[in-house]
Amino acid sequence: MGLKLYYNTFSQPSRAVYLFLKLNNIPFEKKIVNLMAGEHKKDEYKKINPLSLVPVIDDNGFIVRESVGILRYLVREKNLPDHWYPKDSLAQARVDEYLEWQHVGLRIHLAMFVRVKKLFPMMTGKPPASNLLERSLKETVNSCNTFEKIYLSSDKKFLFGNELSIADLMAAMELEQPQMAGYDPREGRPKLASYLENVRAATNPHYDEVCEVIYSFLESKS
Amino acid sequence: MGLKLYYNTFSQPSRAVYLFLKLNNIPFEKKIVNLMAGEHKKDEYKKINPLSLVPVIDDNGFIVRESVGILRYLVREKNLPDHWYPKDSLAQARVDEYLEWQHVGLRIHLAMFVRVKKLFPMMTGKPPASNLLERSLKETVNSCNTFEKIYLSSDKKFLFGNELSIADLMAAMELEQPQMAGYDPREGRPKLASYLENVRAATNPHYDEVCEVIYSFLESKS
Repeated sequence: MGLKLYYNTFSQPSRAVYLFLKLNNIPFEKKIVNLMAGEHKKDEYKKINPLSLVPVIDDNGFIVRESVGILRYLVREKNLPDHWYPKDSLAQARVDEYLEWQHVGLRIHLAMFVRVKKLFPMMTGKPPASNLLERSLKETVNSCNTFEKIYLSSDKKFLFGNELSIADLMAAMELEQPQMAGYDPREGRPKLASYLENVRAATNPHYDEVCEVIYSFLESKS
Repeated sequence: MGLKLYYNTFSQPSRAVYLFLKLNNIPFEKKIVNLMAGEHKKDEYKKINPLSLVPVIDDNGFIVRESVGILRYLVREKNLPDHWYPKDSLAQARVDEYLEWQHVGLRIHLAMFVRVKKLFPMMTGKPPASNLLERSLKETVNSCNTFEKIYLSSDKKFLFGNELSIADLMAAMELEQPQMAGYDPREGRPKLASYLENVRAATNPHYDEVCEVIYSFLESKS
């Protein structure tokens, strides 16, 4: 049986879970879900996740959905090092603060920007509505500013110290996303840029491997 | 010292944490944050939460932000009954699935609908833009449909069995919100209506107490 990962590297949370499995040497069977072809909306995939979302893991028959929940589950079940998600109650509350904030504080804005600027026009052949694009860019800029100001206020290498946590994988994979639509959160944000470089250096070659889809978008731009 | 709750019953997650504290007989000092007067954006409150969000708890000097994180923290720290948030890894993964989904799956849509239909017009004196209102209502309807279809598919009283979990408090407080803008998720959804009645019956008189702000909106409508 083993562990199966249903994912697409196009999706930020899919990349975070993929990266986490690789970094912890957890063997898994790759089940790529073709989002462009709408595979996630077909009945077969809906048996795995009726919400049609990726990623999902199937761990010896036990299905877990939602990236943050998957990462917490894996830390518990696979007895992984504490730095990923601390058992200490107070330290855990700090990591939870970020993980619960990022859904609406960061993720929704960056994902929407890529959809408005790149995906919808690709799918419909029409340019984005200028007011929608403007608002979406503004929300992306604001949320990246908030991320840097609030969460990178210490001199630590990572969000919660000098070792990686699951929050770092979620954050970095999210912050890479808007580059697909021509916006790089590193620009004008030196702390954020050096934070992302820290995560990348600590997780390569897997970081670059899982971000290949983003890098290929950048190349195709020129 | 004790426990302080910074909150406003106008906010769905504030209500969930308030309700949880009451149901577990945890004494707390009420620190009402006047959102209408912009108190959450002032420097004094930003020392508590630089993100200007409610709720926040200050537990003997340890500050915890983000409702889902606060509820998890309280279950751990106050040694509360397991049904609130199960220690069993597989059961916990199920509760996490809902808690991580609801941010973007339910909360953002219902909150936006109330803002577009009610709050922005109250603040600006202008009616909502019709296309924005239409889209916002559609997203609210869709997410309530999804909630009923996916999460109320069993015959259990609550989301994860016949005892309350923190997910039920988050869900019920969210689903009460759009009534403030004239949309009641119970209408046309008998399973959702009876689920909300189950949560209300199991948590009263605190449920009605914390929802007073919503009920007063309903009365002022007529």
